[in-house]
Amino acid sequence: MAYQESYIEGRNAVLEALRSGRTIDKLFILDGCHDGPVMTIKREAAKRDIILKYVDKDRLDQMSSTGHHQGVVAQTAAYDYADVSDILDNARNKGEDPFVFILDNIVDPHNLGAIIRTANLCGAHGVIIPKNRAVGLTATVARTSAGAINYTPVAKVTNIGKTIEELKKEGLWFVCADMSGTVMYKHNLTGPIGMVVGAEGEGVSRLVKEKCDYIASIPMKGDIDSLNASVAAGVLAYEIVRQRLNG
Amino acid sequence: MAYQESYIEGRNAVLEALRSGRTIDKLFILDGCHDGPVMTIKREAAKRDIILKYVDKDRLDQMSSTGHHQGVVAQTAAYDYADVSDILDNARNKGEDPFVFILDNIVDPHNLGAIIRTANLCGAHGVIIPKNRAVGLTATVARTSAGAINYTPVAKVTNIGKTIEELKKEGLWFVCADMSGTVMYKHNLTGPIGMVVGAEGEGVSRLVKEKCDYIASIPMKGDIDSLNASVAAGVLAYEIVRQRLNG
Repeated sequence: MAYQESYIEGRNAVLEALRSGRTIDKLFILDGCHDGPVMTIKREAAKRDIILKYVDKDRLDQMSSTGHHQGVVAQTAAYDYADVSDILDNARNKGEDPFVFILDNIVDPHNLGAIIRTANLCGAHGVIIPKNRAVGLTATVARTSAGAINYTPVAKVTNIGKTIEELKKEGLWFVCADMSGTVMYKHNLTGPIGMVVGAEGEGVSRLVKEKCDYIASIPMKGDIDSLNASVAAGVLAYEIVRQRLNG
Repeated sequence: MAYQESYIEGRNAVLEALRSGRTIDKLFILDGCHDGPVMTIKREAAKRDIILKYVDKDRLDQMSSTGHHQGVVAQTAAYDYADVSDILDNARNKGEDPFVFILDNIVDPHNLGAIIRTANLCGAHGVIIPKNRAVGLTATVARTSAGAINYTPVAKVTNIGKTIEELKKEGLWFVCADMSGTVMYKHNLTGPIGMVVGAEGEGVSRLVKEKCDYIASIPMKGDIDSLNASVAAGVLAYEIVRQRLNG
């Protein structure tokens, strides 16, 4: 399988891609560039809630293959994103209680790929990632997901906290992996559930953690700080699987 | 933390490194090269049970930084290896039943690093890897282990099957992760235990699998084949932790 992400460069090409509805992960614009065509591109991007990054010329030159980026480069996703409602539909169609992964700012594409792979195999109905800061569905993510990206819907949302609130209205409970919590075996993790896993190093952000119903810790006996993010996600996900199988 | 692996090149330098007892992971020799000094190096390497690889000139040129490899390049480990007895001593000193990870040909350094990290945090006493084919303690492994490599002993053995036999005499039981097995929750995984995890894609080799007392499967509901090797190791390791905590 070949997964490709690509860069679209130049003002007309980017504007056309935006208007055609192509999935764009990030839009890079030359810092300080405010002329008419660039303002049009920014307006179109804003309508579609696309993340803008202001960068210097060197960065744009690096991404450019033709050298004619005219101050604008769009990074397209290797895969299309799903909506959160697609994930709930996926659960409904299977007649199962929803089981959703929520990733709070995973930045390593190998980790994101491995987590999507785990989501698929443990029977989760989808993965939710934030629009900003985190890594998107790049070619590396697609490859390390070992094909899972073709089956497990991945939705990108602007505000993780708000999405959690909305999903609570759909009956989901939220468990967040954090060392400060009670050991995971002591929580009841059956029923409709969202599992929140944080960024490498930083963990789950305070605002997101506060929205969770349970904080569950993975028992740690060792000398170092934390598990790799994709391993931690796998361990907690399979505790949920174990409880669901028993329940 | 900076972890460095390095290449030693040239006949005298390599011979000196061998005689000084430096930890060498692999020795690359120009295919078809049989003169006196090279034969001496091969003899010294054989005494120390070091893996020889016969490669073409292009490969040696790639590894060489000076361009003067004279047909011989040694790859040194970023970290020293422990002995299997160090791992058992580690368990004994803590007054715990031995819990050992055995990795059957993990080739991806990120996976090996993440697994050593998991071994440290789940309270395993050490990790055993095979001499041939698998990845050794390279700089990437050290870095992705997040420092665990400083605490958790890693031993390298010539024959995984023979090592399992020897550890059985020490009272260990062996569980191997394989899709053909009974779901892991149904096995009794308490007591002195060795957990065998196989290579990415291939799984545990038949000869090694036959030596295991239990074959345990991780429940899989998805559309794709298998979990990432480091995630699978984490999930099975934490089922062992759960049973040990309850037991």
